[in-house]
Amino acid sequence: MELEIQTYVEKLAGRAKDTCPVLASLSSTQKNLLLAKMASLLEAGTKKILDANAIDIENAVKKGLTKTLIDRLTLNEKRINGMADGLRTLLALEDPVGKTLSMWRRPNGLEIGQQRVPLGVVGIIYEARPNVTVDAAGLCLKAGNAVILKGGSEALDSNRILVQILQQALVECNLPPDAVQLIDSTEREATQVLMHQNRYIDVLIPRGGAGLIKAVVENSTIPVIETGIGNCHTYIDNDADLAMARNIAYNAKVQRPGVCNAMETLLVHEQVAEDVLPQLAADYRGAGVELRGCPATCKIINAKPASEEDWATEFLDLILAIKIVKDVDEAIAHINRYGTRHSEAIVTNNYQKARHFLASVDAAAVYVNASTRFTDGYEFGFGAEIGISTQKLHARGPMGLESLTTIKYIIYGEGQIRE
Amino acid sequence: MELEIQTYVEKLAGRAKDTCPVLASLSSTQKNLLLAKMASLLEAGTKKILDANAIDIENAVKKGLTKTLIDRLTLNEKRINGMADGLRTLLALEDPVGKTLSMWRRPNGLEIGQQRVPLGVVGIIYEARPNVTVDAAGLCLKAGNAVILKGGSEALDSNRILVQILQQALVECNLPPDAVQLIDSTEREATQVLMHQNRYIDVLIPRGGAGLIKAVVENSTIPVIETGIGNCHTYIDNDADLAMARNIAYNAKVQRPGVCNAMETLLVHEQVAEDVLPQLAADYRGAGVELRGCPATCKIINAKPASEEDWATEFLDLILAIKIVKDVDEAIAHINRYGTRHSEAIVTNNYQKARHFLASVDAAAVYVNASTRFTDGYEFGFGAEIGISTQKLHARGPMGLESLTTIKYIIYGEGQIRE
Repeated sequence: MELEIQTYVEKLAGRAKDTCPVLASLSSTQKNLLLAKMASLLEAGTKKILDANAIDIENAVKKGLTKTLIDRLTLNEKRINGMADGLRTLLALEDPVGKTLSMWRRPNGLEIGQQRVPLGVVGIIYEARPNVTVDAAGLCLKAGNAVILKGGSEALDSNRILVQILQQALVECNLPPDAVQLIDSTEREATQVLMHQNRYIDVLIPRGGAGLIKAVVENSTIPVIETGIGNCHTYIDNDADLAMARNIAYNAKVQRPGVCNAMETLLVHEQVAEDVLPQLAADYRGAGVELRGCPATCKIINAKPASEEDWATEFLDLILAIKIVKDVDEAIAHINRYGTRHSEAIVTNNYQKARHFLASVDAAAVYVNASTRFTDGYEFGFGAEIGISTQKLHARGPMGLESLTTIKYIIYGEGQIRE
Repeated sequence: MELEIQTYVEKLAGRAKDTCPVLASLSSTQKNLLLAKMASLLEAGTKKILDANAIDIENAVKKGLTKTLIDRLTLNEKRINGMADGLRTLLALEDPVGKTLSMWRRPNGLEIGQQRVPLGVVGIIYEARPNVTVDAAGLCLKAGNAVILKGGSEALDSNRILVQILQQALVECNLPPDAVQLIDSTEREATQVLMHQNRYIDVLIPRGGAGLIKAVVENSTIPVIETGIGNCHTYIDNDADLAMARNIAYNAKVQRPGVCNAMETLLVHEQVAEDVLPQLAADYRGAGVELRGCPATCKIINAKPASEEDWATEFLDLILAIKIVKDVDEAIAHINRYGTRHSEAIVTNNYQKARHFLASVDAAAVYVNASTRFTDGYEFGFGAEIGISTQKLHARGPMGLESLTTIKYIIYGEGQIRE
C-alpha cells in the first residue's frame, strides 16, 4: 500500500510538472478565459457540489467534529457563488508573468534582463475548507503555475467534485487537466510522499493552523512558505492620542478576532495605563472579550492573571492578554520575543519612537497609528492573496500573484565568450 | 556530549540573533569602516593565519586528502591579501538596507511602503575552503546580517584564527563580536543541531558540492537557498553561425572547467553535426578534453559512448558529453530533463527559435549566442556574490547583497481602523 501511494503521488506530481511549459506560455487572455469558464462551471455544478458536500457534512457530524469545523466545511449556494466570484475577481488583476523587470547592457555588450516567470508546480496543503481548493487553484493558474491540492480528509468528497469541475474547465479551454490535481487519498503517507517531491514540486504552501504549518516545515524537503500565524501586538505609548489608541486597540481585537491579523496582546506604557485601561476594559467587556493581565494590569482593571503561555498564544478568539511596560524598548523587546513576525502596531505621536518602533520590530508589517487588521492582500492593494507570509525568504506579508512567480535571467549575446 | 553540543549551538545561535537589532541599524559608513578594519587586521595577522593553516595542512596530508582538496585548504600571503581585497571590494557596493522600494497611499489614507531590511541571521555550511569564511562574513555583514559559519572540519584551525580576527575587528569598531561566529566543533551532531535552529536562524546557505547541498536540503527545517550545482548545456542550432558556435562551445567547456557555470553537455542539431563536430573535437582534444558521445556522435567523431549517467553529471572537469538532437524542442526537452536549472545556452540566428528557447528552458540564466560562463555576480554587474541560486524561491541566479535582505512593510496611519 505504501509503495502504491508513493507511486501514485510521484506520478501525479510528474504529470503536474509536464503541464508547466504550456501554462508558462499562456497569454493573460487565455488564463482569464479559463478562470471565467471555471467560475461558470462551478455555478452550473451547484447541485452536484452540494450533494458531495452533504456526504462530507454527514461524515463530519458522525465523527463529532466541532460546530466551527463543520461550518468551515459547509458549502451552500451563496458560498459556491462566492467561490465563482472569487475567480472572477482574478480577471482584473495584472498578470505578473512575462514582465521584464529591468534589462541592462554590460561593458562586453551582453544584454541581461530579469523576467518574471511562473514558479512551476505549487503544492497547497490545507484543512477541511473546500473554498481553499478553488481560491488556491485560481491564483496559481493566473500566475501560470500548476497546482497540487492536498485538502483535509473531511472535505474529500467536496474537493473531488470541485477539482473535477476545474479540470472540466481546463479541458473545455483545450488545456491540460493535470494543471489542477487533487491528492485523492486520506492516508497520512500521501502527504509525507508529497512533501518530498523536490524533483517535481517547486514550493509548498501550507494553509491552516499552527500545527499544520509546523508539521509541513519540519517534514518537507521542498521549500515551504510559512503563512498566517499571527501573534500580533498593539503598543499604546505614553505619547499616544488616547482616544485614537482605544479605538485602534478595540478594532484590532474585536472587529474579527478569528483571523491572523487580529491583536492578541495589548502593551500599554505605564504612564498612561491608568488613563486608558479602565475605559478600554469596559469596551472589551461589552464585546465579550476575556482579559488576562500582567500583575500591574490586574491592579488597575479586573482581569485574570496572564500566564507565560498567554504571551506566546495566538488566541484567534475573544481573549486578550494585556501587559504594562515601562517604555517603547520594553514593548519592542516583548514583541520580538513573543511575536510571530506578522503584524505589529504602535500608537504614538512621538516622531522618534514611531521611527524606532518601525525600525526595530521584526515583523512583516509594522504600523504607526493604525489597526493591525489591515494586513491583507486587498487592503494593501494587491487583490486576492494566497496567504500572508510570516517568514523572510521570497515573500513577506500578503502574498499576491507576484509571490507565485520567480524570475529568470534572459541574456542576449552576439558571440561573447569569457576571457 | 550530544546535550552539550545542543546547548552550545543553541546558545551561539541565540547570541547571533541578539546582535540583529544593532546590525540592522548600522549605517553604510559604519559597515564599511568595519569591513576595512577586518581587511587590515587580516593582513596584519598573516603570520598567525599561516601558522594555523599549516596545522590544518599537516593534518590533511596525514589523512591523505587529495591534492585538489589540500590546494583549496591552503592559504599563503597572496591568498590572504586576496581575502582582504575581497572585503575591500564590498565597500564600493551599494548598501541595500533601508531602501524603500515603493510607497503608496490607499483610499483610506494609509501609506504603505516596502522597505529593504536584513534577513537577520544567516548560517553558512561549507567545505574546507577558508576563503569562504571571510567572503561570506563580509557579504552578510554588509547586508546587515549576523553570520554563523560551519566550515569543513579539515579547516578548523584556519577558520578559528580567521574568525578571531574578524571578531577583533568587530570589537575595535564597538560592535558585538557575536555578529560573526564559528561552530567550533568537528562533531556531525553540531551541523544537525544547527539545521534546526528555526527560532534563531533565518536562512541557511550551503556552499560546496552536490552531496553537501543535498544533505542540507534534506535535513534542515530552516529555509535553505540551494546554490551552485550546474549541469549546464550549450545547444548549437542548425541556424547557428558555426564559427561563433565553436567559439562559444569551446569557451564554455575549457576556459574554467571546475566551476558551476561551465558546460557539461553539448547538444548539436543533426543537420550541422558533421560540419561542426570534427573541428570542435580537435579543439577540445587540444585542450585535453575527454569526449563522451551519443551513438550518432560516435559515428562522426572519436568519442567514448556516453552513458545515461553522463547526461545527468556535473563533471567539473575536462570531460564533455555530446548529444545530437533532431531539433530545438529535443534540445529543450533534454535540458529540462537533465539540467540543474543553472545556465543554458542556444547558439542560433533564428529569431523564433531563440525566443522559444528563452521561454521554454527552465533555468536561472538562459543565453542566446553567449557562453554560459557569464553567470556570475561580477559578470552580471552585481559585484561579489554569496552563491548562485539554482532554486526558484527568494533568489535565482547570482546572489548579490540584495539577496541577503528581505522586505518589511512599513505603514503610516492616522488612526485608521478596519470597518
